[in-house]
Amino acid sequence: MPEADFSALTCPAPIEERDLIMLAHGSGGRLTGQLLERTILPALHNPILGALDDSALLSLASGERLAFTTDSYVVKPLFFPGGDIGELAVNGTVNDLSMSGARALGLSLAFILEEGFAVESLRRVLASVRRAADRAGVQVVTGDTKVVDRGKGDGLFVNTAGVGVVPPGVTLGSSRIRPGDAILLSGTIGDHGVAVMAQRRGLELGGSLRSDTQPLDGLVATLLDACPAVHALRDPTRGGLAAILAEIAARCRLGVEVMESAVPVNDDVRGACELLGLDPWFVANEGKLVAFVPADHAEAALAALRSHPYGRDAARIGTIGSARPGTVVVRTLVGGARILDLPFHEPLPRIC
Amino acid sequence: MPEADFSALTCPAPIEERDLIMLAHGSGGRLTGQLLERTILPALHNPILGALDDSALLSLASGERLAFTTDSYVVKPLFFPGGDIGELAVNGTVNDLSMSGARALGLSLAFILEEGFAVESLRRVLASVRRAADRAGVQVVTGDTKVVDRGKGDGLFVNTAGVGVVPPGVTLGSSRIRPGDAILLSGTIGDHGVAVMAQRRGLELGGSLRSDTQPLDGLVATLLDACPAVHALRDPTRGGLAAILAEIAARCRLGVEVMESAVPVNDDVRGACELLGLDPWFVANEGKLVAFVPADHAEAALAALRSHPYGRDAARIGTIGSARPGTVVVRTLVGGARILDLPFHEPLPRIC
Repeated sequence: MPEADFSALTCPAPIEERDLIMLAHGSGGRLTGQLLERTILPALHNPILGALDDSALLSLASGERLAFTTDSYVVKPLFFPGGDIGELAVNGTVNDLSMSGARALGLSLAFILEEGFAVESLRRVLASVRRAADRAGVQVVTGDTKVVDRGKGDGLFVNTAGVGVVPPGVTLGSSRIRPGDAILLSGTIGDHGVAVMAQRRGLELGGSLRSDTQPLDGLVATLLDACPAVHALRDPTRGGLAAILAEIAARCRLGVEVMESAVPVNDDVRGACELLGLDPWFVANEGKLVAFVPADHAEAALAALRSHPYGRDAARIGTIGSARPGTVVVRTLVGGARILDLPFHEPLPRIC
Repeated sequence: MPEADFSALTCPAPIEERDLIMLAHGSGGRLTGQLLERTILPALHNPILGALDDSALLSLASGERLAFTTDSYVVKPLFFPGGDIGELAVNGTVNDLSMSGARALGLSLAFILEEGFAVESLRRVLASVRRAADRAGVQVVTGDTKVVDRGKGDGLFVNTAGVGVVPPGVTLGSSRIRPGDAILLSGTIGDHGVAVMAQRRGLELGGSLRSDTQPLDGLVATLLDACPAVHALRDPTRGGLAAILAEIAARCRLGVEVMESAVPVNDDVRGACELLGLDPWFVANEGKLVAFVPADHAEAALAALRSHPYGRDAARIGTIGSARPGTVVVRTLVGGARILDLPFHEPLPRIC
């Protein structure tokens, strides 16, 4: 593939960093992109995988279209303000399906348990899985449980995969994004990652820091009912809003222009980020979406998002352009402009 | 649920064993069954999950039927005689789909990497995943990569999930097994688990011990073409042949009678089992199937299995009865009979 198209993702790494896996390879920053582009995708290459949207699309003989997605969850701690690994895993997979417009048909659930893990904690996670699945109207239909020796795991890792059906007429995907599209964001950013980091560091930052983990199926249905013209949806999880925008710019060879002041951030999240040395733009969200919408449908789409409880704080944050393809330009609060760049080393390991 | 129906799986465990996860909870023996029956299934209960076949079946509006399955792989070592974790993961998921008669439509692939893992080893695993997927005529269409801190994983854990389409007219499932059914086994048992254990213990047991990891889609297609009357297929992975037979007896409230002498075991596997203190009946297989077939179709089914390279050593090993429901009776080589019982503590952790 032409290296030049992925400039944001493929800057050269020193030899030693290419030889051994580092924590940063899993954090959604540049190294994650490099591992994907240089090692994983070349080995497995095929057009469906290559689309790299939140779900893969599969066509059946009947003409029905399936969405299929997977994620492993290694978040630490397992229980955090506003959620736990079980709820996160269900919502994460439901949301990846929703980003293709699919309605979830069934989930799989696979546990890797460490010897010595408390069965009571497993029960709490299972109850949480059940509640989250009920909330999203989906069932866990298949599963697996493995156990590894003490010291060879970290309590509990979870994998969920999901299958969904894409309704007739719905066609969402990054490849449909066009110059002129409005970029909408469904709410505040950084809530999930900051809540987990604050819990991990034992910081007392007030009771308002909570993960935003929530299922987006209802919000997407509301949006698509009101505005079927939507081009693409993405959920800004690992790597945050910045990673999604940089990826769209790089892969679609488009310019992305975003107004810093338009991106909603909770005051407590902003404060915690200052304390923790984080930028909320790079912090994972688990209940937000970014929508790419033709400009003349942007108002209707924004109104639809705002009409739903999970889209109350939705905002138009920017525009897709054709100038400066491959870059994300941020118009700053003081009227300047800067190029958004993904950090090489992410400061947020094991956030999801 | 009526405890009496699951006598083989639900004998009481001492308090301390119910409080913390033990390695044996993951090895396919009684404790695995207990964890499932007492903790996991009650939390997630629904009819599709409750069927507990190798794949879940999902129905679409068009009438098409999907099979959906998942497994995590924590095998140690990652590379063993006859295969590696990548090949195992692909074949395992292809085989679980095949047991429902489904043709694989796409696989997901999720890695949990430990910080410090060699990228070169990841490349080897990826190449192996690709080869195995090509061999089974399926593609990895979606995936995920997470990284955990050094000392919180064990190099590499893999999860695969798979979606397949069940062809019209094919209906396989444990619930269809009836008294009088012949029990067919597609080949020798114990090869995978013994090869992994021998490698792990550094035993020099000659070059012939090799995992039997292989895709069973072609063998199943050959079998179902010749004999559509097959009632159910299962692949005897974790817990081995014994676990499958005990599970069928317990869940279907049927009697299972098996002739010890009819079950094929490679001489080298038998010898290694004696050395390692293992019983090949309890050892994982990764390329074998057990078929439950109406008696008057048994000969045709056996001939079909034997006509395929992966079914060369197929044998009729027993019969389903209605006497002694819930038990597996083994007719021994010396003409006696014994009740097969699942061991409480399995001696084979992390074999798949």
